[in-house]
Amino acid sequence: MLIDGLQYANWSEKIFRQMREGNVDAVHVTISYHENFRETVLNFERWNRWFEQYPDLIMKGQWASDIDLARETGRTAIFFGFQNPSPIEDDIGLVEILHSLGARFMQLTYNNQSLLATGCYEAEDSGITRMGRQVIREMNRVGLVVDMSHSADRSTIDAAEISQRPIAITHANPFDWSPALRNKKDDVIRAVTSNGGMFGFSVYPHHLKDKTDCTITSFCEMIARTADLYGVSHLGIGTDLCQDQPDSIVEWMRVGRWTKEIDYGEGSAAAPGFPDMPSWFRDNRDFGNIAKGLSDVGMNTDEIAAIMGGNWYRFFADNFGPEA
Amino acid sequence: MLIDGLQYANWSEKIFRQMREGNVDAVHVTISYHENFRETVLNFERWNRWFEQYPDLIMKGQWASDIDLARETGRTAIFFGFQNPSPIEDDIGLVEILHSLGARFMQLTYNNQSLLATGCYEAEDSGITRMGRQVIREMNRVGLVVDMSHSADRSTIDAAEISQRPIAITHANPFDWSPALRNKKDDVIRAVTSNGGMFGFSVYPHHLKDKTDCTITSFCEMIARTADLYGVSHLGIGTDLCQDQPDSIVEWMRVGRWTKEIDYGEGSAAAPGFPDMPSWFRDNRDFGNIAKGLSDVGMNTDEIAAIMGGNWYRFFADNFGPEA
Repeated sequence: MLIDGLQYANWSEKIFRQMREGNVDAVHVTISYHENFRETVLNFERWNRWFEQYPDLIMKGQWASDIDLARETGRTAIFFGFQNPSPIEDDIGLVEILHSLGARFMQLTYNNQSLLATGCYEAEDSGITRMGRQVIREMNRVGLVVDMSHSADRSTIDAAEISQRPIAITHANPFDWSPALRNKKDDVIRAVTSNGGMFGFSVYPHHLKDKTDCTITSFCEMIARTADLYGVSHLGIGTDLCQDQPDSIVEWMRVGRWTKEIDYGEGSAAAPGFPDMPSWFRDNRDFGNIAKGLSDVGMNTDEIAAIMGGNWYRFFADNFGPEA
Repeated sequence: MLIDGLQYANWSEKIFRQMREGNVDAVHVTISYHENFRETVLNFERWNRWFEQYPDLIMKGQWASDIDLARETGRTAIFFGFQNPSPIEDDIGLVEILHSLGARFMQLTYNNQSLLATGCYEAEDSGITRMGRQVIREMNRVGLVVDMSHSADRSTIDAAEISQRPIAITHANPFDWSPALRNKKDDVIRAVTSNGGMFGFSVYPHHLKDKTDCTITSFCEMIARTADLYGVSHLGIGTDLCQDQPDSIVEWMRVGRWTKEIDYGEGSAAAPGFPDMPSWFRDNRDFGNIAKGLSDVGMNTDEIAAIMGGNWYRFFADNFGPEA
């Protein structure tokens, strides 16, 4: 069982075929970054077209059971999420509408303050807003998972406590290992995992120790250490793979429509584009390198299976449907 | 089994309770008249709120099996449809999006020419348009039923022939019985039913012989005669009940936003509002009068059960899912 907790690729038949070569059973795909509701609907339409065009390679994922079906039929199940709450605009009713369309994760913020919470690039973290509390309750009710990957620390800890169902950080690494603004400190990871939540390890170079030059050994040792600290059952992979995207897209991710100036985010004026991926993870065919790396640092078969997909499968099964 | 093929009421707890009193198992509810996509989404939101508020009375219906669940739990399953293709705007991709949200019927026109076909009030009926052919194919693919209740004759016959799956006239009566513009001539009913489609009998007074004064005997004799002509298995009820609506709504139905003048539709300057319902069908508690009336004109138990809901159930089961 192989499940990736986040990708934002420039999708194509090539990538769909690479997912099959890599035996990727399911992926959580970002279907909206800064898009509003109406624009997000157009993105769902584009995916519907791909599902119709490539029925032998991919299928829409709505429930964990769809992963079983995907495995039985040799396809990859595509689950959808948002990196920003922009698709719900200021309307709590859109939470259920978007869940009906297939959304299963929603970040309460990207890097900035949102209507719901504070993003990790803001100077002040005011925590979960009034609307944020209402929306978390509604997300809990319908089965839309709170994702705090890009949120600030206090907002994340608050969300983990306010949410009646487990939440997720789908793609990040521990700050102790690589002190990037987007990586997560101990108390944040603990708040999420101790409430049943999931933490997905990113291979996006800006989240890695030594960035592109990070070694597979360093990455896997970090995972093993994180498992010791918080329990292996709360850990998965969330590569943040942005395969084949032009650099205009990393600018869209960082700048959206919220500023007229350039914001380099995790990059810099000297290196504004997408960073090069590490040699051991270029695309969907390389998950085996991570599994082997985990074995090499001493993790056993059950632990590796849990991290590579078993934990996400259980989390999907528990959290995508209406509240029991 | 009791299924109503069309209602457009001013929904309230009172009406939901009357549906339970009347043992109505399922209703096809108009969720959009002239609304565009974004406005239709707001209407879905309002219904989601009602499903949350009245979980003991109503539930969302998506598949025929939901009617079984509704019966087991003593509720009414609400299925959704549009009286106009306005919710898909000019975007064929919205067909699947709206099916995902729960739409199961879409009229290709209301009374006017649409992007897809010609409405029954136009002077010229040019049949199914280029986009109409594409949209019918897409509706067939995803399981959104073509409803031609308000369409012109040629357009309806064309649609019945072009569609690869059965279509419906959810709410109308035979023109031979009551020559209203909205009622359907023999060749139209034959085209729909001979291709496996359904014809739902309306009790909206403008569709009745002698309007509000129509007798239950006349109505049921007409049904029996229609069964003899086209086969009982193609017939159901589609009351067109507009309970508790203010007269401003019948103006909205007729005028939408397409004209600045008043169009009286089936009414007149002297009687612009909703007509009074016949004495034997005031609301959802009166379906028993129709069943008894059918018995009184000599229909047997199986025939009555088929017309009161069995036929719609079979039609829902066959036509709401993706193409086989």
